[in-house]
Amino acid sequence: MKRAAVIGVMGAGDGARPADVETAFHLGKAVAERGWILLSGGRNVGVMDAVNKGAKSAGGLTIGIVPEANTDSLSDAVDVGIVSGMGSARNTINVLTSDVVIACGHGGAGTASEIALALKSRKPVVLLNERDVSIMFFKAVGGALVHHAESVAEAIVLVRTLLAKDRPGSTISSD
Amino acid sequence: MKRAAVIGVMGAGDGARPADVETAFHLGKAVAERGWILLSGGRNVGVMDAVNKGAKSAGGLTIGIVPEANTDSLSDAVDVGIVSGMGSARNTINVLTSDVVIACGHGGAGTASEIALALKSRKPVVLLNERDVSIMFFKAVGGALVHHAESVAEAIVLVRTLLAKDRPGSTISSD
Amino acid sequence: MKRAAVIGVMGAGDGARPADVETAFHLGKAVAERGWILLSGGRNVGVMDAVNKGAKSAGGLTIGIVPEANTDSLSDAVDVGIVSGMGSARNTINVLTSDVVIACGHGGAGTASEIALALKSRKPVVLLNERDVSIMFFKAVGGALVHHAESVAEAIVLVRTLLAKDRPGSTISSD
Amino acid sequence: MKRAAVIGVMGAGDGARPADVETAFHLGKAVAERGWILLSGGRNVGVMDAVNKGAKSAGGLTIGIVPEANTDSLSDAVDVGIVSGMGSARNTINVLTSDVVIACGHGGAGTASEIALALKSRKPVVLLNERDVSIMFFKAVGGALVHHAESVAEAIVLVRTLLAKDRPGSTISSD
Repeated sequence: MKRAAVIGVMGAGDGARPADVETAFHLGKAVAERGWILLSGGRNVGVMDAVNKGAKSAGGLTIGIVPEANTDSLSDAVDVGIVSGMGSARNTINVLTSDVVIACGHGGAGTASEIALALKSRKPVVLLNERDVSIMFFKAVGGALVHHAESVAEAIVLVRTLLAKDRPGSTISSD
Repeated sequence: MKRAAVIGVMGAGDGARPADVETAFHLGKAVAERGWILLSGGRNVGVMDAVNKGAKSAGGLTIGIVPEANTDSLSDAVDVGIVSGMGSARNTINVLTSDVVIACGHGGAGTASEIALALKSRKPVVLLNERDVSIMFFKAVGGALVHHAESVAEAIVLVRTLLAKDRPGSTISSD
Repeated sequence: MKRAAVIGVMGAGDGARPADVETAFHLGKAVAERGWILLSGGRNVGVMDAVNKGAKSAGGLTIGIVPEANTDSLSDAVDVGIVSGMGSARNTINVLTSDVVIACGHGGAGTASEIALALKSRKPVVLLNERDVSIMFFKAVGGALVHHAESVAEAIVLVRTLLAKDRPGSTISSD
Repeated sequence: MKRAAVIGVMGAGDGARPADVETAFHLGKAVAERGWILLSGGRNVGVMDAVNKGAKSAGGLTIGIVPEANTDSLSDAVDVGIVSGMGSARNTINVLTSDVVIACGHGGAGTASEIALALKSRKPVVLLNERDVSIMFFKAVGGALVHHAESVAEAIVLVRTLLAKDRPGSTISSD
């Protein structure tokens, strides 16, 4: 039996734009509908909170790795909170645990670090609704590992293609 | 809605005694039967592997945090593999994520570090079938946080009591 | 007595351009001449190796935090090797330990993660001889924390100014 | 040129016994007199603070790796503060960075975790003035890697022997 794929969704917390929060909800829902496990930074704000709520609206399994040493800031929509107690050093675990990383919306410094760490460990990254300058920068750094999408539907197609390449037998959960 | 409790089970990998591996299977089964989430070091050997197999035999949810930067050594009985890439530094995450930590059988240095780290972060610990010298040592270091049990049934009773104290409303999953 | 300032220099390892390696040597020398402690990723290749050699040529103190669990890849020009055993999660420690972070030359994904992590923890960053797209991207993410320089001399002036702002009494080591 | 050996001294912070704090000062002094670099948990209390003060009284180089994300709690006697921001996960770095680990006095849970982590990574450990139950426990877990001493002088002789075995050429700094 093949283990379900883990899709990491990264994005802004407190500073997230309303449009990105809304996109995150739809993205989380779409990830769960494919039977993929959702992984995120787990906090109860912004993109992190919304993507988990979207996944739960479709009955998905949600994992959140928080920077703090307790679960005080964990989103209510996270099923399993991994308590790292190591601040931004947990960003490395977020990307190592993900089969594909999606950056959702205009990210801040934390999201930028997660994209860069994903590329460093040779993980494919999908930039969804990112700024042009971010797309240019990450393509300069990560080359063919970097993809971009302008809708949730487009992002999901990219993830399916990337999973099929990396995990040839893992099609069971896709519709 | 209350999140399910996370029970961390620690124990030997390659060097585990056959009796401890057998106990681990029954312990994992009992944890899952209460509706608790099983957390472990996730590797496919010894106590780590057996406790996950036991939990899956009862349909539980199993999370494993591996020391490596990939899932090559992850037990097949782990549903979600958290890939830390940080060697024994992941032991801290194991204990911070657990509501109660159970050390199963005669542990080695890795297990000893997890017990000590649990006590350092004020988590209750149940020593199941541990050596007398270990019980004496950890009681000297951790005082009232340290409990010991000589059967799976006894360990489960202790965990229920400890969860009721720490998480007063969390009785939904108990039989 | 005021502790000496720690300047973190980040940059490419195996993929470093020859011009950036040469700049790194001069940068390390200049850092040591001011009495500052040099911190780096510590590996014996590229910018990391050269910046330590430059610092030692001026008798400075050099600290390197390696990703591996041993010192096999540590530059000979590092006085104290901090052995993290946690891969790229050590990048967070690199930036938290530095009073100012300098990214030297055209960085790869690892360097990009260190710049982003520095900005996330509100550390000032100097981009020395970076690509235009990198400068634009990091200014979009980090705003006033991001500075850029086109020579070692210019970078050193920036660092002195930034240290004076953050550590008002720390002028003893400056010429 | 051979890099100087790094000796890690672990011990209680706030809860340290006065006798252990006094021993720590003499131990730090003796470590520095041999030309060894002192590594510790770096905090400004108990054994951690005293061992650094002892080392500075003999002009040694002192490195402290703090659990916090800033240097607020760093001992004044530490030359270089490594800021981990990862709580007790930094204990793993303490032991990986040390050629030999000395546990000074009656340790608490944090020290116990460091001894266990040292044994897990196959580092030799010297228990100086530890409880009998601790010596028995760690010998059961770590076998021949565990040594014990009842005076600073005895501990230093042990460290010299252990360094000569592990690092055959590293005798330059010894008297």
